[in-house]
Amino acid sequence: MPKLSELGEKRLIQYLVEHLDWPRDGLLPPGDDAAAFWFTGQLVASVDTLVWETDVPPRMTFRQVGWKAVTAAVSDLAAKGARPKYILLSLALKPSTEFSEFLDLVNGAQEASKKYGAAIVGGDINESSSHSISVTALGSSEKLLSRVGASPGDMLATTGLFGKTFTGLHAAMNSRPCERELAEAVYSPVARVDEGVALATCGGVSACIDSSDGLAESLHQLSEANDVGFIVDSLPLDSSAQRYCVDNNLDPVEAVFYGGEEYELVFTVKPGWGDVVEKALARLGKEVVWIGSVNQGRGVYFQGKPVERRGWQHFSPVR
Amino acid sequence: MPKLSELGEKRLIQYLVEHLDWPRDGLLPPGDDAAAFWFTGQLVASVDTLVWETDVPPRMTFRQVGWKAVTAAVSDLAAKGARPKYILLSLALKPSTEFSEFLDLVNGAQEASKKYGAAIVGGDINESSSHSISVTALGSSEKLLSRVGASPGDMLATTGLFGKTFTGLHAAMNSRPCERELAEAVYSPVARVDEGVALATCGGVSACIDSSDGLAESLHQLSEANDVGFIVDSLPLDSSAQRYCVDNNLDPVEAVFYGGEEYELVFTVKPGWGDVVEKALARLGKEVVWIGSVNQGRGVYFQGKPVERRGWQHFSPVR
Repeated sequence: MPKLSELGEKRLIQYLVEHLDWPRDGLLPPGDDAAAFWFTGQLVASVDTLVWETDVPPRMTFRQVGWKAVTAAVSDLAAKGARPKYILLSLALKPSTEFSEFLDLVNGAQEASKKYGAAIVGGDINESSSHSISVTALGSSEKLLSRVGASPGDMLATTGLFGKTFTGLHAAMNSRPCERELAEAVYSPVARVDEGVALATCGGVSACIDSSDGLAESLHQLSEANDVGFIVDSLPLDSSAQRYCVDNNLDPVEAVFYGGEEYELVFTVKPGWGDVVEKALARLGKEVVWIGSVNQGRGVYFQGKPVERRGWQHFSPVR
Repeated sequence: MPKLSELGEKRLIQYLVEHLDWPRDGLLPPGDDAAAFWFTGQLVASVDTLVWETDVPPRMTFRQVGWKAVTAAVSDLAAKGARPKYILLSLALKPSTEFSEFLDLVNGAQEASKKYGAAIVGGDINESSSHSISVTALGSSEKLLSRVGASPGDMLATTGLFGKTFTGLHAAMNSRPCERELAEAVYSPVARVDEGVALATCGGVSACIDSSDGLAESLHQLSEANDVGFIVDSLPLDSSAQRYCVDNNLDPVEAVFYGGEEYELVFTVKPGWGDVVEKALARLGKEVVWIGSVNQGRGVYFQGKPVERRGWQHFSPVR
């Protein structure tokens, strides 16, 4: 297969115009300068860029990167109770990139978009000395969730268990065997779109955020935005992650709070609304994971000790 | 001023949340995971990434890069007759970037957004070994222009004269003096938003594209999309560019067709609609530049000779 430097931008765009599944409600032809649609309602938009150097673990394929990049942008919509409809992709790739890698990247992004009910509608292709993919997700919501709205007395919950990316990444970085579920959490993460919509519409959720920066960081962000504190009294530890921690002598508390790139939703529930929220997720075959409560303090506590604010951040002097 | 590596992503985001002019119609607080708005009508979306290595001429400041990146994304909307409303920015910057450079970049993007009537509503900040800025422009249009719709017999026109970026860039690359207008075309380009909206609503325009890839490339794209040919019989040469060409022994035809990064609109006008289109632009104090006609052939001709398809493209084997 040729390299991108042997093909040129126009032929790459032409290929995408001919081979991507364009949505039927587009008001402009594929390949035009912009995408256009009729839209009525609450428009929700988010952009997320994935830079290979900092965001891509070893042995991740181009297809998986495309999938993950879309998942990350869509997860921000999910956390606001929105469903993605349209995806814009902007790629910056090295000239030495193989055409097959380019196709894998775009196909991975398209597969993820379809999984979440959205379609790729436009984008941009650039040459660069380092790979990156920037995904804009546009969606709609009937009811919005915000990260602001939590009050002391609310309950604290998540849509799933944690520790999988921490252990899965540890296995990848150290070439150790791990259960399939852990590797999947790293290489094929899934955004909680249906859960986000269900949480927004059920009426019992006061604030919501996704856990992409790690559970500790997400809780600290919620604490800051709402001027409240959190007491975590039940550690949401995944059982595969727990086994990996035992086998590899890792701290499960560390695995739960500092994994990052997990796309669970972290949310607060108004007093007396627990049953309603449980039923909303049960309709999707999912369970609410209750992990603690909101109090009048500030910060995050587990077993009486403060949970340090220490998540991944770009440009961070301390990691 | 400190470098980004001494600050960390969260403090940069916090700074933007506190200092950017957020629009009042936002349904989520600044700094939440996504931006949200009520929207009804034709939603038009475009993304454009500017990679320093390939897209930034020597001595361009961070402020100018921010301005230009927004202009490039907005120009794609303008060419469809849409007005930008919301801008999402995704930055990938080196850790050694100065905080003052980061501020200049964001301020340049904000100035341009305001100039076009739009507001920055969200974004993403990433660490990378090479600088890039990805801009998503979201807008609305009453009536859409497409690049498809030109027919033989239509007239060919532009919103302005060409040659300024070719000569301005030549001056920058060779450290030669040039008239202010030429440097401005390179360092502070302006998208034709009002013109695009006027052209879309007047009813006489059959197809439209912007000239960001160069006039020759834009005409070839229109030719391909419409299966028509173009005869250019009047060279739209800017007078400052002409003087620079004479002084520096450059070919003005080359300067007009192969400049690129000019954000004029290139459009076709239905027979008999010339007056209507002229009046539509005259209301903005602008003149239509008539440059030729659409015929049944294929390709682009000037003075009986084919105009070669040779514009800037990323990954191009021939430049």
